[in-house]
Amino acid sequence: MKEITSVQNALVKKMILLKEKSRERKKTGLFVIEGQRELDLALKGGYVIETLCVCPEITEIDFAQADLKIKTIHISKEVFKKVAHRDTTEGVLALVESKEHSLQSSFKLKENPFILVAEAPEKPGNLGALLRTADAANLDAVLIANPKTDLYNPNIIRSSVGCIFTNKIVTGSSKELITFLNNQKIKIFCAALTASKNYVEADFTGGSAIVVGTEATGLTDEWLNNSFQNVIIPMQGEIDSMNVSVSAAILIFEAKRQRGF
Amino acid sequence: MKEITSVQNALVKKMILLKEKSRERKKTGLFVIEGQRELDLALKGGYVIETLCVCPEITEIDFAQADLKIKTIHISKEVFKKVAHRDTTEGVLALVESKEHSLQSSFKLKENPFILVAEAPEKPGNLGALLRTADAANLDAVLIANPKTDLYNPNIIRSSVGCIFTNKIVTGSSKELITFLNNQKIKIFCAALTASKNYVEADFTGGSAIVVGTEATGLTDEWLNNSFQNVIIPMQGEIDSMNVSVSAAILIFEAKRQRGF
Repeated sequence: MKEITSVQNALVKKMILLKEKSRERKKTGLFVIEGQRELDLALKGGYVIETLCVCPEITEIDFAQADLKIKTIHISKEVFKKVAHRDTTEGVLALVESKEHSLQSSFKLKENPFILVAEAPEKPGNLGALLRTADAANLDAVLIANPKTDLYNPNIIRSSVGCIFTNKIVTGSSKELITFLNNQKIKIFCAALTASKNYVEADFTGGSAIVVGTEATGLTDEWLNNSFQNVIIPMQGEIDSMNVSVSAAILIFEAKRQRGF
Repeated sequence: MKEITSVQNALVKKMILLKEKSRERKKTGLFVIEGQRELDLALKGGYVIETLCVCPEITEIDFAQADLKIKTIHISKEVFKKVAHRDTTEGVLALVESKEHSLQSSFKLKENPFILVAEAPEKPGNLGALLRTADAANLDAVLIANPKTDLYNPNIIRSSVGCIFTNKIVTGSSKELITFLNNQKIKIFCAALTASKNYVEADFTGGSAIVVGTEATGLTDEWLNNSFQNVIIPMQGEIDSMNVSVSAAILIFEAKRQRGF
């Protein structure tokens, strides 16, 4: 197999651009994955791998590429290190096709669903942690209202440890998502500091969506005005904020407790 | 008041060294705080401020330094930017005396205490998030077993949003801390994947310590062998790990629910 050894190679330059530029990802509908686990989860999530790049000097894994019918290219260690963010990603890179996440795409929910909504999450690390929790809790969907960044930002992929590929993720405007939840008769529980009930007193046993805002400003009025019940985690310390992914996890797992695991 | 304008000034060089070098912090017993909120929490936590550095070009806050009897120095914007990690820290820096965190220091617990133990936390960001949660839950103490870094690492201070100063924090070897908990008749609940009970079925209403390990390797046998009850958060997704600060928060707030907020 031919091996790419030049960092000036067109494919290498393309991957670097895709990692760095959201605009480039949107224009081409492609993004870059690094790491074996992330690749496995992307395959499990039904993503189409356009090109798989393997560094034989690093990787010890047999990819059975023939089985997967994925176009595979060998790359040198130098090329791998130029493109990869991490040293620990096992010499595996892939050029992958984005998915459509808008509400228009066919989206069916099972009965009595349990959903997380994140409004305009700012930090890739927070969104990644939310997606890990959503995975662990086996949520039916994660809705992202008015996203600030495209989902395939390398920092989101990394901090989600690949959960971005296996969660059912829908993006849309707050208005669209609120209408959708109302139409589906899913109760909206907004995490809020005002006019709120202690979250352990809320009833999450029906179709429920837990909605969290940003750490800095919380939720907008658009969500708060459409809330079935605002819920609060009582805080008894010196500061009045927890990390948003921590707060969301506390709410999600209280709901899991009530709903049975 | 005299203003320091040179980044070559001895105090400035000292602060930079203290921010960068754990060894220097240990040697001198000093560390650096940046930010108004962090400073307020340090004062609330009883820390002794050796020198307060204020950049009049940036800060709008009246510190009432005379009242606090803190030696105060003015610094130029250039000096502030050279020392500070963040742009948003309001032109405030302080040289502060470390506290002693070993178990030898007088340490009394109220009846029926609730404690978090973190074994050898690796990432400053995770420890910071744990401390924010410990603050919100008003825990009686946070014990850090076999710490990998000194507490006054700037990344820990920053990610804890200053909660490092108001939590009661004790560091020690696992052996010391286990002996302490046993002597105090505090039940040890280890977060573990093996031989574990669903955490919602555990009884946290008595004196309880929740113990978490690292994301990579979990807890050592030393803790697992001394556990009253291993507890697990059932995970139903594609990956089998959550962020450690997220897992700890789920356990802590289930205990809070059982104990009443």
